Amino acid sequence: MTLPRIIIGIDPGTRITGYGIIEVTGTAYRPLDYGCIRPPPKLKLSDRYLILFNAIDELLHKYRPHALSVETQYVEKNVQSAIKLGMARGMAIIAAKRHGLPVFEYAPTKAKLSVVGNGKASKEQVQGMVKLLLSLKELPTPEDAADALALALCHAQSYNSLIPCNCEI
Amino acid sequence: MTLPRIIIGIDPGTRITGYGIIEVTGTAYRPLDYGCIRPPPKLKLSDRYLILFNAIDELLHKYRPHALSVETQYVEKNVQSAIKLGMARGMAIIAAKRHGLPVFEYAPTKAKLSVVGNGKASKEQVQGMVKLLLSLKELPTPEDAADALALALCHAQSYNSLIPCNCEI
Repeated sequence: MTLPRIIIGIDPGTRITGYGIIEVTGTAYRPLDYGCIRPPPKLKLSDRYLILFNAIDELLHKYRPHALSVETQYVEKNVQSAIKLGMARGMAIIAAKRHGLPVFEYAPTKAKLSVVGNGKASKEQVQGMVKLLLSLKELPTPEDAADALALALCHAQSYNSLIPCNCEI
Repeated sequence: MTLPRIIIGIDPGTRITGYGIIEVTGTAYRPLDYGCIRPPPKLKLSDRYLILFNAIDELLHKYRPHALSVETQYVEKNVQSAIKLGMARGMAIIAAKRHGLPVFEYAPTKAKLSVVGNGKASKEQVQGMVKLLLSLKELPTPEDAADALALALCHAQSYNSLIPCNCEI
């Protein structure tokens, strides 16, 4: 008997952070929760990070996932944006590590390839396949939540595959 | 009567993070602790961030400071280094915010100007003036710890001045 595993995917951002939590039993997937965290942009940056950290921490308390899957951060042209994104990503990583969770990262192309079968799939294609794979009644919105669910699904498929991902960070 | 205030300065880095804690009563400064945190470089990056977070969290529990002073992060040429530094800086910021501490940032030139009187002071000059201002028996080492003490002193002087710093983040 395969025991169910719970995976949380996080698509981090300073303005909007998507999350998606799924339960995986063998090759069967069940959505537990998804949505996004939007710290009020008028707040100080440090208060926005605190809101982000607390919201993720609360999700980890509630669903007790076994692993966190997060998007790989690419080098961007705007270094200040890269630093801010890195900080938001850092909130997800430290929240997970404080719960003893391993953290895995996947490139957006890898997540799209895993879920849609095409590394260059559109946002709409990702939402459509996530809806299908998780038997959702509606397209998951906003797209940040769909991306987070895709990251969780990507990790589930990678975990089930015979080739280890080597993507624990 | 002026009540003493405790300030923690943090000079963050992925390899080595300096810290310095001072007690300020009016214009009198007293060193409480300083040193550095060196997460083993062989560990996974996420485990190194956890060590950093936990070490800073422990210092905040022990000394109950009133404010955290951290170096401003500049745009660097190497974006990957900037992201890693941003994450280390994020650990200090989130640890502080979870304790309800306000976080202030100062440019390295501002800290040097405040402590040495010269924004382009050498590392040795900073160490020398920190030693003098805090009546230390020895030069504070490593330089990351001296820089952290300088950041704490810079905030103390800024707090005592009539011109608000506008540098809370």
